Amino acid sequence: MSDPLKAKRMGAVKQITSHSNPIVKEIKGLVAQRKHRTQSGLFVAEGLKLATDALEAGWTVRYLALGPEARENPLAQKAAATAKARGALILEVNTAVLSAMTRKDNPQTVVGVYEQKTQAIESIDPTNSTVWVALDRVRDPGNLGTIIRTVDAVGASGVILVGDCTDPFAVETVRATMGSLFHVPIVKSDKERFKKLVATWPGTVAATHLKGSVDYRTPDYREPVLLVMGNEQQGLEQDMADACKTLIRIPQVGEADSLNLAVATGVSLYEIRRKHLDL
Amino acid sequence: MSDPLKAKRMGAVKQITSHSNPIVKEIKGLVAQRKHRTQSGLFVAEGLKLATDALEAGWTVRYLALGPEARENPLAQKAAATAKARGALILEVNTAVLSAMTRKDNPQTVVGVYEQKTQAIESIDPTNSTVWVALDRVRDPGNLGTIIRTVDAVGASGVILVGDCTDPFAVETVRATMGSLFHVPIVKSDKERFKKLVATWPGTVAATHLKGSVDYRTPDYREPVLLVMGNEQQGLEQDMADACKTLIRIPQVGEADSLNLAVATGVSLYEIRRKHLDL
Repeated sequence: MSDPLKAKRMGAVKQITSHSNPIVKEIKGLVAQRKHRTQSGLFVAEGLKLATDALEAGWTVRYLALGPEARENPLAQKAAATAKARGALILEVNTAVLSAMTRKDNPQTVVGVYEQKTQAIESIDPTNSTVWVALDRVRDPGNLGTIIRTVDAVGASGVILVGDCTDPFAVETVRATMGSLFHVPIVKSDKERFKKLVATWPGTVAATHLKGSVDYRTPDYREPVLLVMGNEQQGLEQDMADACKTLIRIPQVGEADSLNLAVATGVSLYEIRRKHLDL
Repeated sequence: MSDPLKAKRMGAVKQITSHSNPIVKEIKGLVAQRKHRTQSGLFVAEGLKLATDALEAGWTVRYLALGPEARENPLAQKAAATAKARGALILEVNTAVLSAMTRKDNPQTVVGVYEQKTQAIESIDPTNSTVWVALDRVRDPGNLGTIIRTVDAVGASGVILVGDCTDPFAVETVRATMGSLFHVPIVKSDKERFKKLVATWPGTVAATHLKGSVDYRTPDYREPVLLVMGNEQQGLEQDMADACKTLIRIPQVGEADSLNLAVATGVSLYEIRRKHLDL
């Protein structure tokens, strides 16, 4: 966006009918393997809604593939025109090529390839924040995507991925965000830099912990809040828990050992933002 | 359980090394297709934890397959002894056979086949209930499993599946319940019988609805509560919404259109049971 030559460069339109076209292979690789996404800095999002969200939010589109149905759809035509004006290559493909790209029998009729965007932890401005959700080694793409969606819904500031987390740009994650990926800042951090942020955080730092002694409804949650959630299987590592001031717990009865991570994050976020949310 | 001959019948142990063994094929079918589960009334749950949960809760085990590691594990040995005493066939298999059964590269070392158990809607006793969660045409196995897990965690009474829902006994659903499937009553109902239940329900009936005008935190939720949740894409059908007295909504800001169904159900359940849950 900051390169004026690039910003002015008009995109093009290309018909692809062969599965062995190099761009089709490239997109297949982005869908299938994190390695390809990391090396290229690109990712795939399926569907017209997500393409519209991405364009509105100013994300850079590299390719926008349109199937036969999409080429008849005024909203898809508009998205393609906007993407092309911003330098994207528009791919006119058949349904079989869409299927091959996305490895799905019933593919969406619009498939976009976008440039990844994350922030460094040092860019977080606590004074200009409501709630940041930090996830310690989150493993499940569906959980991460669902949490990004909830963060958007409650007006939280963003998500911090601490340590070895699942890829926020995996197709399953992007799908579960329902477009919120394009609206929610994602920060990647190692544990040490994250602990530095915790040490100087001006508001409430609350971590959910199975041994937490504070009912999640009792802290006053002074904003900016930092909500720290542990890994699905192991919970929060002890040194991470030690770094956090308040260890909260969500009460449970019955035979369940724990809540699903995305549900626990949702319940916590609605409590933290309770005073700020109204119909 | 009511057949004394069956209850007394001692199970047996069988070694299986061939992928083409009929029992292996039967289990593969139960994993892969709802049709096979419906016809046989059986389902598959992976893992020692779920086997232990199932046995403790008195579910009927048809087969319990143990890989080499499980046969060295005292807890798995105990589960196998209990299952065998109740008439189950214990299968001693290798890891390749476990992989074939479950269609997974890294299978759990215990795989159980259980008899399905659901209740008729007429068996629900509102006077002996806290909260029932009714799901209108829920589609996603992960959402359903996660909701069953949350229902267990908040001490709700059970789940009512209304209309054409995803299979509660699908492997993905069972996995997402983390064992709560064995502790939470599941009711299947058509819409008409469900509406009859609504009409005579003695406590609060609350349905989440995008056009709901009642903040989900304002009703007094007189138990027994009936919480009604709509389909992931379409929400609640109009006639279902009309049948419910209170249409609630969870406030949202940001660009998200809606919450994930399991998150919305979790947030609602923790609000409904707020006065009843403590650390």
